[in-house]
Amino acid sequence: MTPISSLGEFALIDRLTAALPKQNDTTLVGVGDDCAVVCYGGKPVLLTTDMLLEGIHFDLVYTPLKHLGYKAAVVNFSDIYASGGTPRQLLVSIGLDHRISVESLDELYSGLRLACKNYGVDLIGGDTTSSLTGLSLSLTAIGEAPEGGAILRSGAKDTDLVCVSGNLGAAYLGLQLLEREKKVFNNTNLNDETAAQPDFSGYDYLLERFLKPEARQDIIVTLAQAGLRPTAMIDISDGLSSELLHLCKASHCGCRIYEERLPIDYQTARCAEEFNLNVSTCALNGGEDYELLFTLPLAEHERIAEIADVRIIGHITRPELGALLVTRGEAEEVALKAQGWQACAN
Amino acid sequence: MTPISSLGEFALIDRLTAALPKQNDTTLVGVGDDCAVVCYGGKPVLLTTDMLLEGIHFDLVYTPLKHLGYKAAVVNFSDIYASGGTPRQLLVSIGLDHRISVESLDELYSGLRLACKNYGVDLIGGDTTSSLTGLSLSLTAIGEAPEGGAILRSGAKDTDLVCVSGNLGAAYLGLQLLEREKKVFNNTNLNDETAAQPDFSGYDYLLERFLKPEARQDIIVTLAQAGLRPTAMIDISDGLSSELLHLCKASHCGCRIYEERLPIDYQTARCAEEFNLNVSTCALNGGEDYELLFTLPLAEHERIAEIADVRIIGHITRPELGALLVTRGEAEEVALKAQGWQACAN
Repeated sequence: MTPISSLGEFALIDRLTAALPKQNDTTLVGVGDDCAVVCYGGKPVLLTTDMLLEGIHFDLVYTPLKHLGYKAAVVNFSDIYASGGTPRQLLVSIGLDHRISVESLDELYSGLRLACKNYGVDLIGGDTTSSLTGLSLSLTAIGEAPEGGAILRSGAKDTDLVCVSGNLGAAYLGLQLLEREKKVFNNTNLNDETAAQPDFSGYDYLLERFLKPEARQDIIVTLAQAGLRPTAMIDISDGLSSELLHLCKASHCGCRIYEERLPIDYQTARCAEEFNLNVSTCALNGGEDYELLFTLPLAEHERIAEIADVRIIGHITRPELGALLVTRGEAEEVALKAQGWQACAN
Repeated sequence: MTPISSLGEFALIDRLTAALPKQNDTTLVGVGDDCAVVCYGGKPVLLTTDMLLEGIHFDLVYTPLKHLGYKAAVVNFSDIYASGGTPRQLLVSIGLDHRISVESLDELYSGLRLACKNYGVDLIGGDTTSSLTGLSLSLTAIGEAPEGGAILRSGAKDTDLVCVSGNLGAAYLGLQLLEREKKVFNNTNLNDETAAQPDFSGYDYLLERFLKPEARQDIIVTLAQAGLRPTAMIDISDGLSSELLHLCKASHCGCRIYEERLPIDYQTARCAEEFNLNVSTCALNGGEDYELLFTLPLAEHERIAEIADVRIIGHITRPELGALLVTRGEAEEVALKAQGWQACAN
């Protein structure tokens, strides 16, 4: 028998969904993008789903349930924005084990409700069941496609500019801080009143990026207002490198991005140094950034430069040139690797 | 802290989803029916989702993975049919633990694919991840609404006839047979070559009803062809009593159903006797039948009588009369109780 880990998530999905025949005219886009797209009554509808399992995607030791609810919703909304769309509805399924009280569930739902309120989304249904095996969440978001249809991963063209919103690596370092404090806590004598309290001072932004990420609705609105339609787009959940490779594969192209152009916050840089981590590696592979990665025609260079909180980090190339990172300093070219979050590593 | 079990699934859902404000015109029907209904481009779209967790919804000891995949898809399609619609697309999320090999997953997917093929549905996406905590499935089906919009639970009127498709209690007895053989197997010395093999002879139909249920697409087609549009409809997943109570609550009505009218297969009756179970209790509360329960105006009596595999089991009454079962023999009236599957009993 072949272990799942020998294939990895994406090879596995390729295997399982190979040659699925399309049976309905209402199916526009199937497996392989941020969203599936269906079309009833002439209007495309975006669909995306995410499963979040205790011990894999979250640790209840340091994840408040309200934050978990908020984040679970937002990461689904992020997939809708990554197709250029607007999330409108949400389905939420929850598997509850005996540790979860009604009050805890109220907390989880208060986070879900807040996310729905902030992003203008209706919670329209789901499923609630017992679980023998920890807290399980599965969310499906439904969204409206932009004018001109969903923006896919597959539209990038040679010479297009590669752009990224916000900054990268912050959530990953937020997670490292929480994991460190968890270890300290586990080694603490609970009767020792002088024991150290968690010290996160100066790193609030990193914790917030991990525990309460936001989806980049603002970027979608700004791009639309500027009349800029990305040729391809994806959100950064598994790490920039991994997402760039998806985009290049789907678009049949290569890319060259520049290490010195990677957007990194001051707290991220300082915290990486404290952990003795290479900050570029954190930015490339950290994951859970929920920023948008997109491509635009080279001719739009000046207009992109005017958009706040978006940075051009490189450009698209012909496929035979590969997906490359031009390093700082000696300016070597190294191949990008997907070293980020591995959903099927266990 | 209040344990979830003190509330039960439906009180819990009421609590969590109370007063959710609607923010989008595209939201037609939210929490509380078999499907949610959204409307983009003037055409209603049905959405339903189900979470299936190992140890709660299935036992891999006696559930072949191909059957599990088939059933997981079909129970979602059943919710679409229960709104009078036609399933068109399916999203599938899977949490895999280390016991699941690539070959096992191929089996699971072969069942999903077969269900999609048989019901004309496109598998358009999902999520695949590791799990530390057993096999987890979460499926979302998308469907086309019937002419005139989704059939809801809430449209039943006083004097309407209460109808049910197929027969009831068979899946529940199939489960009892499998549980009995699991106990025998657990007590068997594996070195004893004379040990009894599982004996299911004469009960194939019961096992099939449990392991490989079908959704009643045929009934939806037949009703549409006959020009009969149910005033209210629901599928029977948690047991007839429980679903009747949902329908009556949503429709603000009562009902009177007749024990002698409950449709029961010969194998179900014989097996119930063998297990020393009351067969009517199995039919009322067994669950997992995936038959359709619906109401039609009294005036349609003759036309309903002509439809194969549909039986009239009673009628709708004014709400103050309650939801009653008229028993066989002495013809007592007893209040229906939801004693079926409790999703949040643990």
